Amino acid sequence: MYSDVFSLTRILLLFTLLLGAATAAWAEDGYDLWLRYPPLEKDIRDQYRPQLQRLVIPKSEQSPTLKAIERELVRGVGGLLERRPVIEERISGDGFVLVATPQSSRDVRAQNFPLKALGEEGYLIRATTIRGHKGTVVTANSERGLLYGSFHLLRLLQTRSALEGVNIETRPQIGLRVLNHWDNLDRSVERGYAGQSIWDWWNLPDILDPRYTDYARANAAIGVNGTVLNNVNASADSLTPRYLAKAAALADVFRPYGIRVYLSARFSAPVEIGGLDTADPKSSAVQRWWNEKAEEIYRYIPDFGGFLVKANSEGQPGPQDYGRNHAEGANLLARALKPHGGVVMWRAFVYQQDNPEDRAKQAYSDFVPLDGQFDDNVIVQVKNGPIDFQPREPFHPMFGAMPKTPLMMEFQITKEYLGFASHLAYLGPMYEEVLRADTFAAGPGSTVAKVIDGSLHGHRLTGIAGVANIGSDRDWSGSTFNQANWYVFGRMAWDPRLSAEEVARDWLKITFSDNPVLLETGLDMMLASHQAVVDYMTPLGLAHLMATGHHYGPGPWVSDLARPEWNPAYYHRADKYGIGFDRTREGSNAVAQYAPAVAARFASRNDVGDGLLLWFHHLPWDHPMPSGRDLWQELVHRYDRGVASAQALQNQWRSLEPLIDPERFDKTARLLAVQAREAKWWRDASIAYFQSVSKRELPRGSAKPEHSLAYYQQLQFPWAPGH
Amino acid sequence: MYSDVFSLTRILLLFTLLLGAATAAWAEDGYDLWLRYPPLEKDIRDQYRPQLQRLVIPKSEQSPTLKAIERELVRGVGGLLERRPVIEERISGDGFVLVATPQSSRDVRAQNFPLKALGEEGYLIRATTIRGHKGTVVTANSERGLLYGSFHLLRLLQTRSALEGVNIETRPQIGLRVLNHWDNLDRSVERGYAGQSIWDWWNLPDILDPRYTDYARANAAIGVNGTVLNNVNASADSLTPRYLAKAAALADVFRPYGIRVYLSARFSAPVEIGGLDTADPKSSAVQRWWNEKAEEIYRYIPDFGGFLVKANSEGQPGPQDYGRNHAEGANLLARALKPHGGVVMWRAFVYQQDNPEDRAKQAYSDFVPLDGQFDDNVIVQVKNGPIDFQPREPFHPMFGAMPKTPLMMEFQITKEYLGFASHLAYLGPMYEEVLRADTFAAGPGSTVAKVIDGSLHGHRLTGIAGVANIGSDRDWSGSTFNQANWYVFGRMAWDPRLSAEEVARDWLKITFSDNPVLLETGLDMMLASHQAVVDYMTPLGLAHLMATGHHYGPGPWVSDLARPEWNPAYYHRADKYGIGFDRTREGSNAVAQYAPAVAARFASRNDVGDGLLLWFHHLPWDHPMPSGRDLWQELVHRYDRGVASAQALQNQWRSLEPLIDPERFDKTARLLAVQAREAKWWRDASIAYFQSVSKRELPRGSAKPEHSLAYYQQLQFPWAPGH
Repeated sequence: MYSDVFSLTRILLLFTLLLGAATAAWAEDGYDLWLRYPPLEKDIRDQYRPQLQRLVIPKSEQSPTLKAIERELVRGVGGLLERRPVIEERISGDGFVLVATPQSSRDVRAQNFPLKALGEEGYLIRATTIRGHKGTVVTANSERGLLYGSFHLLRLLQTRSALEGVNIETRPQIGLRVLNHWDNLDRSVERGYAGQSIWDWWNLPDILDPRYTDYARANAAIGVNGTVLNNVNASADSLTPRYLAKAAALADVFRPYGIRVYLSARFSAPVEIGGLDTADPKSSAVQRWWNEKAEEIYRYIPDFGGFLVKANSEGQPGPQDYGRNHAEGANLLARALKPHGGVVMWRAFVYQQDNPEDRAKQAYSDFVPLDGQFDDNVIVQVKNGPIDFQPREPFHPMFGAMPKTPLMMEFQITKEYLGFASHLAYLGPMYEEVLRADTFAAGPGSTVAKVIDGSLHGHRLTGIAGVANIGSDRDWSGSTFNQANWYVFGRMAWDPRLSAEEVARDWLKITFSDNPVLLETGLDMMLASHQAVVDYMTPLGLAHLMATGHHYGPGPWVSDLARPEWNPAYYHRADKYGIGFDRTREGSNAVAQYAPAVAARFASRNDVGDGLLLWFHHLPWDHPMPSGRDLWQELVHRYDRGVASAQALQNQWRSLEPLIDPERFDKTARLLAVQAREAKWWRDASIAYFQSVSKRELPRGSAKPEHSLAYYQQLQFPWAPGH
Repeated sequence: MYSDVFSLTRILLLFTLLLGAATAAWAEDGYDLWLRYPPLEKDIRDQYRPQLQRLVIPKSEQSPTLKAIERELVRGVGGLLERRPVIEERISGDGFVLVATPQSSRDVRAQNFPLKALGEEGYLIRATTIRGHKGTVVTANSERGLLYGSFHLLRLLQTRSALEGVNIETRPQIGLRVLNHWDNLDRSVERGYAGQSIWDWWNLPDILDPRYTDYARANAAIGVNGTVLNNVNASADSLTPRYLAKAAALADVFRPYGIRVYLSARFSAPVEIGGLDTADPKSSAVQRWWNEKAEEIYRYIPDFGGFLVKANSEGQPGPQDYGRNHAEGANLLARALKPHGGVVMWRAFVYQQDNPEDRAKQAYSDFVPLDGQFDDNVIVQVKNGPIDFQPREPFHPMFGAMPKTPLMMEFQITKEYLGFASHLAYLGPMYEEVLRADTFAAGPGSTVAKVIDGSLHGHRLTGIAGVANIGSDRDWSGSTFNQANWYVFGRMAWDPRLSAEEVARDWLKITFSDNPVLLETGLDMMLASHQAVVDYMTPLGLAHLMATGHHYGPGPWVSDLARPEWNPAYYHRADKYGIGFDRTREGSNAVAQYAPAVAARFASRNDVGDGLLLWFHHLPWDHPMPSGRDLWQELVHRYDRGVASAQALQNQWRSLEPLIDPERFDKTARLLAVQAREAKWWRDASIAYFQSVSKRELPRGSAKPEHSLAYYQQLQFPWAPGH
């Protein structure tokens, strides 16, 4: 009899393995993102199983959010532990997971958990004993809190964290945590490199792609609570009834997952679809039009989040067309949304044609004088740096400079200037660098994070936006590692104090496994990758050296475009004598836009640091560097270092082959080969150009560019995506 | 002991069911097309299992095609029978499947099968006994034949056909069976309604999406042996080295599956990328350029199929720009390809700006006089009808009219004028109608099929093209039923004598199941669907009533476009007195382009038949119809009938809910609801317009259009896909 049972067990095990293998064979196309629930390692599974036997989710009424929680936990726990938890009305034994608010559960009420500080979205996960039964409670003040807590519980399992004695209390530091989709109504995506838009506008609202639900799950799992569906270069058609019905269908899918829908609003919509002859914010007809439009929108989408607006920037219409300022424009829309609880996210990414002022200074010049003039449901959305999502920029001088105005961060998740979807560049360290930068706006410790979480200047309206890298590609983001950028954005939006490293570790565990070799190598790769791209594209604080239009390959030689600030030559200012943009008092004096302590550091060649040296300083080629090299040698060295780093990424990945499924291993390996090749292209083309300008010899040991400068200059990429 | 075994069996069964359920839960997103290999019903599985125990595929050397065959059979048989066949070097018992040519297997040689008539691509599947062992042989003259035979064997299982006594001999009736992708280098697809192009040009050749392999498998399974990768409205960039390397990477993936790559060639490429100042076919420099380009292409793709060319049509460059004719243009390219074995597929879809001749006549007028002037590696590609992929057209008068020139058929699989991806319109009956149409070119029985299979005029170069409905959507074609159009194209390309019904039956069995209720209802739906679309869009031989540009909704009122033949009013010619395009001798005399017997029938109001009545005749509104109604009443009746058919499709589908997985049931149900709604829109808008012209009362019992004509006229669809 014993042997029969034994063989039965063996057969079941075999089947289980087969099942696992079959699942894995099909699943590793990247679709599941961080919602991967394959069976955990057996010893870990065995540990968890007694702790997660029964699921108790009291539902007083039909709640889509509670249903979503139950579905997710059944799927997640069932998959990870290969055992479906029992669904119970009431705790009946050990190993329970109770997911409830004090309102929905007497058991939770009786525990008197300290929920007050958790707000509307925070949650508490605690190991506890209820009526003699041991288990875990996920509780919160709202169902949304329960949702986030449930995803966190699953993350604990995915990262193999202990449930014994678990005691987690967390609430988001930032209120609006939104993705910005630069998606057009024809499904093209501006700066999108992962296929076309996942919004199938043509077939909405009739057809609801299951992908919409999975999008909501993935975002809820990392705490994203809003999404701007359409491009900031907006079409007014998005505000027509036909398209509002489509947006409403998406909002209905997202709502159970705590995600609100926002729309980019075209400032001239009253003219284009409203039949008015002006969009002047001072026109009462215009105000009325927006008021009625808002009412209409809220009929379609009762919890509509609000508008994102790109105005008077790169050809977009705006209040300045009528001699009004940004505050007047923003307040026009804000007043229409105000009765409904909506907000305006007004972008500060502006620079004027014909304005000879250093482009890095223009947004500050435009906006800072308006501090205090914005309505209280306006938040100004500021890119992380003063130019435009370069591989490295200093933090934007507006952060800390507008104490009376809520400012939100705009990060880019899609890698417009960092190798599109092909190159591995984990953006966590870049986000971290910006968030931790000290503005000194209210003395030391006035970090950018504290500006945007509202704590520095006491704002309740707070936000952070990420320009999405999401498209119709099966793996959503064009590569496995690109998914990590979406992931880290969400995690840091919830808690800007998180380190890039700890998020990367979580992501690696969830995405691959917790094999220590994999984790160590994977972390090395991810944490080194951003600096590698900086080195081979724009070392030492250089910026905007990309070729025109597509922003992909190198084009430092470009100097013939109509507007000066479109030309790479505008940014590097290299000539026979030196290189760099003088933003000190002797130059554009952009440093003066920062707090004195910061300005002094940036203005000092010695204190500014390698990373931003040529951003702030124009220096002679023979300027001595701390390394002992002169500037020219250092520049070449950085390029060489970038290429070596890219090659190292390739080798490191290769060493992981036995630890990774073949599908993801192979695609990543091929992408890393592209990156290594293109790093060399960047290095060779840039050096060929700078050498033609500096007339300097290459340092000993540094290889000649593979081709002539003319070769690199004639390369054309007319069909680059995202343009 | 017995009870233990019993419970073991039960548990295994349970696991199997779970496995099946899990697979089904994941798999029914339509990705698998007709390569679905879920477990067959148990009784059928049990019948097959002893017949398919061992797989014998002798491989003398590394052959990618034989490997592909083995992978497919293991996957297919293993999935359908839930038992992986044993791989053997040599037959060792009953239940073998031997896949081999006489060259690769002594056992096959010994059988002396009659392979001669099967040619390069045909195959034989026969139940046989070899050295005392019973099994099935798949044999052919080439590995490609084995590949097609193996897919056919799997189809036998998928359709639950008996293997006992199986004896199939088949060879394709048509040589070139190609898909035309109207895919652009930016991944947009002209007239594509299923997402973007599956060719990720930007990432090729580095990244090879697994989808490319699945595309090749799906096509090989239905006998497609060629693919034109890029749009006929071509960019010359496709012929640059950078893009040839990308096309070559695809060709490498497709080659094991017997699929050749072709490219659309832009006639002016010698100017655009060659630096010449002319593309004149009489210039020796131009001939030399194409010769060298062909040599270059064959270095990248040794089995390159050749060029498809759209010349002097809708703004495309062509030989007429230099005063040369189509034959001179085609021969220019043909001579470049000739040494390498390539062909030119030269499109006959031409109509000239400023040519007042009936558009339906122009291609014939241009091409027929050139009969005999084309080189022997040119084949002229003719759309099925003389206008442009309308829901119904007469067969093209060129078929049968150019005995000295090989003509190939161009069908459209994507539903540019038949409701895009949303509407269910099974195109099998339309293809069948055209292929079986009798041209009388060499007396009765001179069907279009016999023209294009070469038998009528003794051509060895034969071909058929389908404009693909394939995109990046997960289900490839935007809906489950759209897949059937790709499928029937391939099956009829192999054998134009197949009926639309038998192909639909196969497809339903493979796609859903062989449940008799499902089959009966599904067949009813599919076979009625094309006529339904004809009825609610363009009844009684009307054509081209679609709104401008997007070709989606109704626009019979459009009459203000620059070129007369762009206007729906050009086609229907409706006024107070009557409707229809007089193409008899009294009118444009387009009938005279057909053989006398056909011309006489088309010219007769009584004999032409309802389907093409108004295509050939302009008739008064009170023209009496065989139904007893007058023409006006009949027109309204047809619109009503179309709407009723669309509603019937919806009801029929609903009745199948218990028999279909929820994913595909739900999406199809939603699409059928769209179709029913839009059928009504077509009917209402068309009737509102025609009534405004005819000034006639609606027949009793026929409902008034829901909105005013003005309402329908103001509808705008600026973001329609595929345009």
